Amino acid sequence: MAAAAELEKQAVHVGGEELPFVDIGDGNKLKVLQVKPGEGLWIVENIFQAGYEVQTHRHTGPVWGYTTSGAWKYKEYEYVNRAGSFLYEPAGSIHTLQCVEDATHVWFHMYGANINLDENGEVASVVDGSIALQGYLALCEAQGFGRPNVLVG
Amino acid sequence: MAAAAELEKQAVHVGGEELPFVDIGDGNKLKVLQVKPGEGLWIVENIFQAGYEVQTHRHTGPVWGYTTSGAWKYKEYEYVNRAGSFLYEPAGSIHTLQCVEDATHVWFHMYGANINLDENGEVASVVDGSIALQGYLALCEAQGFGRPNVLVG
Amino acid sequence: MAAAAELEKQAVHVGGEELPFVDIGDGNKLKVLQVKPGEGLWIVENIFQAGYEVQTHRHTGPVWGYTTSGAWKYKEYEYVNRAGSFLYEPAGSIHTLQCVEDATHVWFHMYGANINLDENGEVASVVDGSIALQGYLALCEAQGFGRPNVLVG
Amino acid sequence: MAAAAELEKQAVHVGGEELPFVDIGDGNKLKVLQVKPGEGLWIVENIFQAGYEVQTHRHTGPVWGYTTSGAWKYKEYEYVNRAGSFLYEPAGSIHTLQCVEDATHVWFHMYGANINLDENGEVASVVDGSIALQGYLALCEAQGFGRPNVLVG
Repeated sequence: MAAAAELEKQAVHVGGEELPFVDIGDGNKLKVLQVKPGEGLWIVENIFQAGYEVQTHRHTGPVWGYTTSGAWKYKEYEYVNRAGSFLYEPAGSIHTLQCVEDATHVWFHMYGANINLDENGEVASVVDGSIALQGYLALCEAQGFGRPNVLVG
Repeated sequence: MAAAAELEKQAVHVGGEELPFVDIGDGNKLKVLQVKPGEGLWIVENIFQAGYEVQTHRHTGPVWGYTTSGAWKYKEYEYVNRAGSFLYEPAGSIHTLQCVEDATHVWFHMYGANINLDENGEVASVVDGSIALQGYLALCEAQGFGRPNVLVG
Repeated sequence: MAAAAELEKQAVHVGGEELPFVDIGDGNKLKVLQVKPGEGLWIVENIFQAGYEVQTHRHTGPVWGYTTSGAWKYKEYEYVNRAGSFLYEPAGSIHTLQCVEDATHVWFHMYGANINLDENGEVASVVDGSIALQGYLALCEAQGFGRPNVLVG
Repeated sequence: MAAAAELEKQAVHVGGEELPFVDIGDGNKLKVLQVKPGEGLWIVENIFQAGYEVQTHRHTGPVWGYTTSGAWKYKEYEYVNRAGSFLYEPAGSIHTLQCVEDATHVWFHMYGANINLDENGEVASVVDGSIALQGYLALCEAQGFGRPNVLVG
């Protein structure tokens, strides 16, 4: 039956080497694995180098971080994410990412947007999965990786 | 077993008269039914009067609208929401609510935040479930309704 | 830019008369509004008549019920859902729906599956959005409504 | 303001050594990191040994797998999950996990339940986050790990 076929669902595998990491400056890297724009879902993998810092932001949905190498932390907390660390960030949480060691690998599984905040806690900008995807695709092209097959939809 | 008891889950009913509507200006009203801050979930019921308008905003998560009386629309679309209308707003959608008839009742089932936009499409402010809840609780107290038992958590 | 266009998102309105209600027996009716098979989301509208009963089931995801007319309850609880009632059913909740008054209208906004349970609490069957959609489409055709434009995907 | 404090949200870190792995037979291991029973969310980490097999099951919500070492596959597909692999399993997908190499580490980020299927594709049993948590806590106690501090709620 047509409806059954339409609804048939397959698990999708993306091997570690299938999608390129693009350079986002100073040897820090980004790979966008999956974006469901209508759900607000975006899943990325980053490689950070020591000293890399992400602007303070508040999340509008829950976020999870899975770290597989290196070391990074939030300026607001003492704990350090290392290989094997699990991090849960509820919607509404605010923090400033700082990378502590080179070659830090993290998967971020995110819902909603990052509301970037300036020094006074005012909204400076908003970044979401669609924006991240467009940036990733543009950098892939600019850096000679062509058009990667990100899971979108 | 203790764990089983902790995990036992009950359906929670909120009757139509259980929580107050607060006046948010000009006879327009708000009731906050449920907020899960960590999920970014917020569910409200509004009563709008003809001419009421909500600032243009973009959603960071999906939203659904269930209309039970009156008439309202988005300035960007032709269709009009009336009793029985179902509305699905994917994350990333942008629109400007306008109420067309008095006594328009709508349930909004929302994930994420409203990114309010100014005339140039720049971010003017951000509203989410926690902010809506705080406003609702403050108005309940100011308008003599005490502390209502919103589902939170 | 192509990527931007792909990601452009529009709110989708389904007017109260746009999709048919199919008869599921004894004057009880079903309309399927939206199914996102990969998310486990299904949103339906039911019209129940007094005496209608749904097999006891446990939900694997959260569910919300928005009632607009009539009266219905869960056998396990005292409260009665009437026009204006809001109902939150966490994942894991178990209950047996009973309709109390004719012409009871309810929107159910559901994630996951209904695990139907027999008299001993054992799994009897599983119903989810894809199964509901296939049943709805088959009944639409059998009852002369053609192929309705349910939001799927 | 009290409401603000109630809603303040903190990111929660679980270091790789903080929660124990319990033995679930033949050197295969399980750690339960987070369960939100009302959302149907459960996040676990497994260590599988070559030859381990999980009963064929269908998911009622979406699932993601993040592999950090070893090798495993689904009997139904050719691809092999290795260190760095990302796997997306939409709700409704059906598969049979087989571990190919010893010391295979995977994080599974899951919504909904596993509907375990027998050889005829009939429902054999249902496993969800609450059941997994109870099993994990019982094994922790039986294996001398006391009561671990799983994120629940």
